[in-house]
Amino acid sequence: MPKKSIAAIGIAAHRKLHGKIVVAGKKRIKSLNDLSIYYTPGVGAAASYLASHKNEVRKMTIKNNTVAIVSDGSAVLGLGNIGPEGAIPVMEGKAMLFKEFAGIDAWPIVLDTQDVDEIVATVKNIAPIFGGINLEDISAPRCFAIEERLEKILDIPLMHDDQHGTAIVVMAGLLNALKVAKKSLAKSKIVIIGAGAAGNATAKLLVQAGAADVIVIDSKGIISKTRTDLDQYKKQLAQITNKNNTSGDTAVAVRGADAVIGVSKPGTITPYHIKTMASRPIIFALANPNPEILPTQAKKAGAYIIATGRSDFPNQINNVLGFPGIFRGALDHNIKKITPEIKLRAAYKLAALVKKPTPTNIIPSVFDKRVAKATASVVK
Amino acid sequence: MPKKSIAAIGIAAHRKLHGKIVVAGKKRIKSLNDLSIYYTPGVGAAASYLASHKNEVRKMTIKNNTVAIVSDGSAVLGLGNIGPEGAIPVMEGKAMLFKEFAGIDAWPIVLDTQDVDEIVATVKNIAPIFGGINLEDISAPRCFAIEERLEKILDIPLMHDDQHGTAIVVMAGLLNALKVAKKSLAKSKIVIIGAGAAGNATAKLLVQAGAADVIVIDSKGIISKTRTDLDQYKKQLAQITNKNNTSGDTAVAVRGADAVIGVSKPGTITPYHIKTMASRPIIFALANPNPEILPTQAKKAGAYIIATGRSDFPNQINNVLGFPGIFRGALDHNIKKITPEIKLRAAYKLAALVKKPTPTNIIPSVFDKRVAKATASVVK
Repeated sequence: MPKKSIAAIGIAAHRKLHGKIVVAGKKRIKSLNDLSIYYTPGVGAAASYLASHKNEVRKMTIKNNTVAIVSDGSAVLGLGNIGPEGAIPVMEGKAMLFKEFAGIDAWPIVLDTQDVDEIVATVKNIAPIFGGINLEDISAPRCFAIEERLEKILDIPLMHDDQHGTAIVVMAGLLNALKVAKKSLAKSKIVIIGAGAAGNATAKLLVQAGAADVIVIDSKGIISKTRTDLDQYKKQLAQITNKNNTSGDTAVAVRGADAVIGVSKPGTITPYHIKTMASRPIIFALANPNPEILPTQAKKAGAYIIATGRSDFPNQINNVLGFPGIFRGALDHNIKKITPEIKLRAAYKLAALVKKPTPTNIIPSVFDKRVAKATASVVK
Repeated sequence: MPKKSIAAIGIAAHRKLHGKIVVAGKKRIKSLNDLSIYYTPGVGAAASYLASHKNEVRKMTIKNNTVAIVSDGSAVLGLGNIGPEGAIPVMEGKAMLFKEFAGIDAWPIVLDTQDVDEIVATVKNIAPIFGGINLEDISAPRCFAIEERLEKILDIPLMHDDQHGTAIVVMAGLLNALKVAKKSLAKSKIVIIGAGAAGNATAKLLVQAGAADVIVIDSKGIISKTRTDLDQYKKQLAQITNKNNTSGDTAVAVRGADAVIGVSKPGTITPYHIKTMASRPIIFALANPNPEILPTQAKKAGAYIIATGRSDFPNQINNVLGFPGIFRGALDHNIKKITPEIKLRAAYKLAALVKKPTPTNIIPSVFDKRVAKATASVVK
């Protein structure tokens, strides 16, 4: 019998489970007494009390431990705009991870709209029962507008994981990679291939951390102040990156670079690119499941450190190293906003968990039990 | 030590639990292999497959067993418009009941809006991951408009429980009460006190079942075609009830009535009212937790059969006899709409579970294990 592909195994497993999460009561309702405490009339007293003591909602309801995972299905994994139905298994999986890694009760919501105004209104309207909102798999540049607007109106923490979760884990890995390669963040030339959700947030976080020479590339080439085809978000990037205002394609950008971070698609990093980089090249090829360049190929071209999103190679850059702990900390400390400072601290904390980084060990394992606790601890 | 009140016990229990429901994965994620099946890359295959096989979403996701419990907190229990925060414990309790009585994974959503348009848009937008929508504790007449509009646009079953769940259970109890009192539904004069969500739906269901002499009373008196102060929903009631187009107050309405159903507030049924009714008066005093008239008082005034919403008296009319089984049936048979015919069948089925009704036994116990299965069986 031929070995089944992971795709076939995945589909079969999903078909067998009929959904990957359940809702369960913390107590069973087996008697009239149970019913009178947890439903009427006992619940009426709790409801009435909360109506006039709104500051105690977290003490008496699920709001203290819930996160909504909200997606419109417009940028699901590497699959693109597959819509809300296709997005469901991914969001269920994410809910499993929230529970497994941080004990959080996360509920998936997939939206029957991809309109920015409607998404903002819908998330605002459903927010009261949640302690946090994890935006997920929403395409750029809509994701930026949605996040910006929601941050202004929500009184609970919000994080678009494809932006900031990714940026935090990438930066943690990069900090250790630079350490191993004996380079400094401030003096390194760092090229980010891809200006979508992940590329945008990663660039901002690196600049905020003190990286002085960051270049971002989109499908048209280097993002610079000279370009006239940029939307407002790429214009912002042009302001804070590309200090020499260079123009050109990927080959131009990566020449002499210390690190290249691909958050793009297969084929966008070539052996030739790597050969033109500075000494001890650092390659993060994070497209999933197929990276920008395969580690074996990158290695052969001279890469010193290679990270991917995959579990079958060393240095797995996986968002599960970020979001569970960050939301855990936000819920535990009733944080209203996941600020840039929190994101930076989380990246440094995550990096510090690897005591002695090596070329094949720049980031903790996703099953390292210290991770969620450590990242949670800096959210304050 | 004095015995604690149920209110104090309820508040203490809610404070202790910090939320009454949890989300749990059906599988643990303990290894890279688990991660690769239930998250990436395995989930990508499932997501991709579903994007092009939308008719299989129920086979591979939680949509086959999920119901959203949606409230805007505008009419919570008998507490009135206490807002979304106050409503949370009630909706959590309802989620516990969905699980306990029908194995359904129900998730509470409380809304940061009481605007009809926004509620309709929000419910539509979050619908894709749910197999059904239970509207809850939304005040009349807004609840009628919301339900009407959502029924037109959703492709999953929707039920406003305060309307139809109540109507179904009331009718089941009434069918048995009339049987015990040797009266027929068609020939009985039935007065409904209260023209809100429950009163409206109960009147419609009874008329649909063949009740020919139904009178509905609101705070201004008997609802009749003569009145000029009626909203569109009460105008509809005036068309199908009050065949002689009588006017007047409760005293006028209940004179000679066979059954009086209170879905109103304490004090709206008096001993005097009962004394003017036909022989073997049937009284449903369903205001909760304090009924329109206490059973002892009603009995003394001559009531033959008395039902309340309370568990400490016989004949408890409780919605938990309706909604779990009805949604169970709707999910199991992929029903798109909970039609008036389904509601009628559910009422008859529920009534039939009491083999030999007596004045103090007109409705099954809420813990009667046959109930959910029986009501589910007629949803097709």
